[in-house]
Amino acid sequence: MKLEKLVGDRFRERPSDCIVDSHAIMVRGGYLKFVANGIFSSYMPLKRVTRKIEQIIREEMDAIDGQEVQFPVVMPASLWQESGRYESIGKEMVRFRDRSGSPFVLGMTHEEAAVQLVREYGQSYLKYPFMVYQIQTKFRDEARPRAGLIRVREFTMKDAYSFHTSQADLEEYYARCHSAYERIYSRVGLPEVISIASDSGMMGGNISHEFMLLTPIGEDSIAICKECDYRANMEAAESIIHNQRDDVSDALTLVHTPNIHTIEEVCGFLHCDEKTSCKAVAYQRNSDDRYIVLFIRGDLEVNETKLTNYLGYEIHPAVITEECGLNAGFIGPINLKGDFTVLFDRSLEGLNNLCCGANVSEYHYTGLDMARDVEGAEYHDFAKIQEGGICPHCGKPSITISRGIEVGNIFQLGTKYTESMNMTYIDNNGETKYPVMGCYGIGVGRLAASICEAHHDEYGPIWPLAVAPWQVHLCAVRSDDVKVKTYADKLYEELQGRGVEVIYDDRKVRAGVMFSDADLIGVPFRVIVSPRNIEQNIIEIVSRDKSFSTNASMQTAAEEVLRILSDAKASAALTR
Amino acid sequence: MKLEKLVGDRFRERPSDCIVDSHAIMVRGGYLKFVANGIFSSYMPLKRVTRKIEQIIREEMDAIDGQEVQFPVVMPASLWQESGRYESIGKEMVRFRDRSGSPFVLGMTHEEAAVQLVREYGQSYLKYPFMVYQIQTKFRDEARPRAGLIRVREFTMKDAYSFHTSQADLEEYYARCHSAYERIYSRVGLPEVISIASDSGMMGGNISHEFMLLTPIGEDSIAICKECDYRANMEAAESIIHNQRDDVSDALTLVHTPNIHTIEEVCGFLHCDEKTSCKAVAYQRNSDDRYIVLFIRGDLEVNETKLTNYLGYEIHPAVITEECGLNAGFIGPINLKGDFTVLFDRSLEGLNNLCCGANVSEYHYTGLDMARDVEGAEYHDFAKIQEGGICPHCGKPSITISRGIEVGNIFQLGTKYTESMNMTYIDNNGETKYPVMGCYGIGVGRLAASICEAHHDEYGPIWPLAVAPWQVHLCAVRSDDVKVKTYADKLYEELQGRGVEVIYDDRKVRAGVMFSDADLIGVPFRVIVSPRNIEQNIIEIVSRDKSFSTNASMQTAAEEVLRILSDAKASAALTR
Repeated sequence: MKLEKLVGDRFRERPSDCIVDSHAIMVRGGYLKFVANGIFSSYMPLKRVTRKIEQIIREEMDAIDGQEVQFPVVMPASLWQESGRYESIGKEMVRFRDRSGSPFVLGMTHEEAAVQLVREYGQSYLKYPFMVYQIQTKFRDEARPRAGLIRVREFTMKDAYSFHTSQADLEEYYARCHSAYERIYSRVGLPEVISIASDSGMMGGNISHEFMLLTPIGEDSIAICKECDYRANMEAAESIIHNQRDDVSDALTLVHTPNIHTIEEVCGFLHCDEKTSCKAVAYQRNSDDRYIVLFIRGDLEVNETKLTNYLGYEIHPAVITEECGLNAGFIGPINLKGDFTVLFDRSLEGLNNLCCGANVSEYHYTGLDMARDVEGAEYHDFAKIQEGGICPHCGKPSITISRGIEVGNIFQLGTKYTESMNMTYIDNNGETKYPVMGCYGIGVGRLAASICEAHHDEYGPIWPLAVAPWQVHLCAVRSDDVKVKTYADKLYEELQGRGVEVIYDDRKVRAGVMFSDADLIGVPFRVIVSPRNIEQNIIEIVSRDKSFSTNASMQTAAEEVLRILSDAKASAALTR
Repeated sequence: MKLEKLVGDRFRERPSDCIVDSHAIMVRGGYLKFVANGIFSSYMPLKRVTRKIEQIIREEMDAIDGQEVQFPVVMPASLWQESGRYESIGKEMVRFRDRSGSPFVLGMTHEEAAVQLVREYGQSYLKYPFMVYQIQTKFRDEARPRAGLIRVREFTMKDAYSFHTSQADLEEYYARCHSAYERIYSRVGLPEVISIASDSGMMGGNISHEFMLLTPIGEDSIAICKECDYRANMEAAESIIHNQRDDVSDALTLVHTPNIHTIEEVCGFLHCDEKTSCKAVAYQRNSDDRYIVLFIRGDLEVNETKLTNYLGYEIHPAVITEECGLNAGFIGPINLKGDFTVLFDRSLEGLNNLCCGANVSEYHYTGLDMARDVEGAEYHDFAKIQEGGICPHCGKPSITISRGIEVGNIFQLGTKYTESMNMTYIDNNGETKYPVMGCYGIGVGRLAASICEAHHDEYGPIWPLAVAPWQVHLCAVRSDDVKVKTYADKLYEELQGRGVEVIYDDRKVRAGVMFSDADLIGVPFRVIVSPRNIEQNIIEIVSRDKSFSTNASMQTAAEEVLRILSDAKASAALTR
């Protein structure tokens, strides 16, 4: 491919609307084109990167006995009504009617389609286990697309679905798939991706893992223990609190707290630590606006994912009206009158000498003793784990919080879909049973952006060889020099003839322009033919990451390039 | 791949709802699964076929300097409003609103997206020509999906868009693309595909070609000249009529024709040939139901595509009401009163002694002389070409009408999209101009179905080697025989190790079941290991199309299979 003919513009300035580096680089380097919020077209360099990623994913899925299939992008609503998700999924799923008025959806995931595909096939235990996967366009109407390809609305995803006759068989396959994922990340150049326990959310089921690339620009918060191998998404991480009760409980005392509303103000006014306060956080159920009041220790935050999972329904932060019976800023557990769902976080269990709202305007209590004053309270884990918090695994106060991009996930789904969609098989005793499912996703575009995020400098991406759009970037500096042009043309033909993917820059432009374009295209090895090099009978071979530079004689240049590529492949394989 | 693990059911019975063979075979063979009208999932064998077709297409597009890109499936309506097609395309385009209420469409073609991708890039004449293409899922809400993968609503398509600075440059590239298409059809096993001149319809522009596989199940009618190389879609074929005027014109005479309505009845009653009648065909404009009355020679049919193209708007057959001013069954060109659009087909020009309606109930005229009685009539070509009609190219009455499946099309678009979407470039004289576009499509699934349609027998498909899901089907007949199983296992490993794609049937089933499954999977070469063969120290190698059968010694079996595959590839290459 001649660079001169490569469609797409490259430029130096960072676009002002790009918050993350991978987005800025992909815009600057002619990788993608904005079409609509969260919707992009890809130019050839990005398409080449994603196709290579897809091929690596495909090979690893095939290696764990996956069968590549294809589900539709457009699915009848009836399929999603069977599983119940047509109703339970919100606006992120696009719904429309076809010309005859029948309701359809755009696929954002394909559990329903997978069950529909194999429901008749999988009627005997002898057919199990099996796994089908596809690499296909999906659409999720995200409320807040952001960061280029990190969070989009339209995306290409590899999604896989496995079917089993037992939980044990699922777990065995799940472990195989976990290993395949590790190989995928390693092969695409991200061996540093870690897997963490996660919350399954709307997917149903129990055990699941997210694969995370740790980076400050990540959207997810991850709790990692410095002392053991505990890692979990903040959403799923258990918050462990060793509650310390004072030896003596003070009396419950009503205190006038004029113009005092927030926990900070209350604690400042009463000269106490937030840890000795009982904070109220109010929500409402989405379906009917019923109020939920959650009490938690004043210094902690609510993990809304845990709360939603406990409640089993969707909620939103409460809008507190004058009629609702809640006294904003003064809500407390004593004398709270009204038909509310009242919950207590474990961080309060057994504590005494707390301050809290008195459910009367401008009054708080001090001397609250949860055991003495709040009878019958049940305590559950609703708190966010904190930096320095206690590790649920080793028990040491060694939790750190990092940010990460989720570059893949795997779920043990159980029988959620097979039961709701009535997929059964006859087991070896003649009994009818529901197969157990797992599902396994990787977003291809987000993975490409993550690779770029992890491997770039200020000048552009540093693509790992396995996913680079080309392997060699051949620069003919001063191509108006006939010797340069003749030799570079010959080398281009020779390298291509020997199966090397070459992008060839023979434009009559300054070396500076040539090299900054090469930086933006990010090909791992650059081969430079120039008048000065030719005079010395050499070519230069330089790696994009600057770790490596060598000269080769003009006569053996192609050999040398092939050797370097072969070494680089071998060393990439070694790190796996 | 072991056949035992292949997801999908195979069966012998032809499903009653399958009208065409390729559909029946794909259902019987576990290739596809009905999801909704015109929407299918693909099992692994079909996915492997389509991926191979896609790779062949990709190689040929790359060979004509195409750059693979990707456009979105979901596009903002604004893009289609720019070109004017948001309004002009009907219900076949899915429209919906996203969560914020903004209008979007599902891509059924991507001219707009292509222009949007390259509009900034292509601002200088130096960047031209270039071509971008994608292989992507599309959705077209067809009113009548049919025939399995032949006419669907969701489909995968390769669509390519080229940009040029002159019509001559477009024509040169168009010819290259035409050749690339011929290579594609040849490589996938359909060298018999022909290209024909076609009507561009809603794509705009002028010259275009459709690539047709001739088959009785095709949806398109194609006019082919037996005497020269003229070939055209019926929709586009010019109808040539040598009008023969009688020497003497009779007087125009009103005739009472009670209970006579159709042309047949009129001609029977008046004892004349339909060729001497002037037939009226009435339509209405879709937008406001305005009437169009077209007069044509009684024995000819109206080509509605030509009529629509002439009118420049969509029409439908007229509903003739009592108030409309038209006298159903008695419409004629004389004394036709009312605000109608009146058109005349060339077949009437200069004719005399015709019969026609008198615009009065139960009356016709005889002795109509178009030149004498219908002043100021303009004549255009609105008639369908007929079997035995005159070839517009060589002038001989040697037209035959065949049916065909359209397996690809190429269009010279001109500046329709670049003008409407204001894509310009500065030419070498500093002038601002609109680039000229071409577009080039191939539906991947329809091509797979067409290959199956052209290459099958009653037992299943006979896939050409280049697109077959696997290259070799290894049957271990009586796999409970330890010698058979051991040898077949070893051969399976050896062939796979040497890069052969093998589907391996080691199920403990009867040979009949094994072979009928192999017929349905349609792999070109079958290798049979059986107790009887082993006793004779041989394996059998049989081609799926029965043209070839040989025995090889067990020791050199793998070598022999490789040689046969290599010969088959070479002979396929020779036919190109």
